[in-house]
Amino acid sequence: MIDHITPGFALDVLKILGINGKDGEVVTAAMNVESRSYKRKDIVKIQNRELKPSEVDRIALIAPRATINIIRNYDVTSKEKVELPSLIRGIITCDNPSCVSNSREPVEPQFTVEQREPIRLRCYFCGHIIEREDVLKQF
Amino acid sequence: MIDHITPGFALDVLKILGINGKDGEVVTAAMNVESRSYKRKDIVKIQNRELKPSEVDRIALIAPRATINIIRNYDVTSKEKVELPSLIRGIITCDNPSCVSNSREPVEPQFTVEQREPIRLRCYFCGHIIEREDVLKQF
Repeated sequence: MIDHITPGFALDVLKILGINGKDGEVVTAAMNVESRSYKRKDIVKIQNRELKPSEVDRIALIAPRATINIIRNYDVTSKEKVELPSLIRGIITCDNPSCVSNSREPVEPQFTVEQREPIRLRCYFCGHIIEREDVLKQF
Repeated sequence: MIDHITPGFALDVLKILGINGKDGEVVTAAMNVESRSYKRKDIVKIQNRELKPSEVDRIALIAPRATINIIRNYDVTSKEKVELPSLIRGIITCDNPSCVSNSREPVEPQFTVEQREPIRLRCYFCGHIIEREDVLKQF
């Protein structure tokens, strides 16, 4: 279960996970429901699915307060906050076409986090700013 | 609440309704959950939202067994099946570019239902077949 998703972003989380329902995955998504900690939140519950680290990293970009709860036999067996590192590497690419990270050089894209929520990233190489909408387009 | 949606098509129903969570709508979507009547089903619950007839007509095309339940104060106050007419008019267009319904003539697109689920439509004018995937692309 992915809890405390930024309100309105459950469908983006499903997209990150490649879930559209057509593969028979048992999934529940709740949007803009009341939250004790924050005013509103989204929740996504998925049966029998472990998240890959790369998926968790992407979720952290759009929902930095999300928690990943593993539920077994109706008990929460583990509860972890996603982590948004201060340097983002290898998850998204710079959308400035003339950035060195988009040349043929073997340069891994890197971004510093200028703002956490909504996310605002600055390309380490060319200074280009990437906003949440741009990040979502890459997912 | 829209119940008995064809399993895997809850997100398509949300798309038909123009719901992506970003407007603060309180929504729950369940996919591929167990059903008494059928093996699996999808469910969509929306707070404070009445469906327009044109929305119900579109839902019927991809989920012809769906039921629309109106819930007030925790009680189901009305329960209606969507209706898939045998002649579909004005909801979708023919994707054969040389069909007369795509000319400048004032001809309303019309389709006969060849198969209900998954939907298969035949254009009344040019005989062109439209499958569920083609219908979804128009929504």
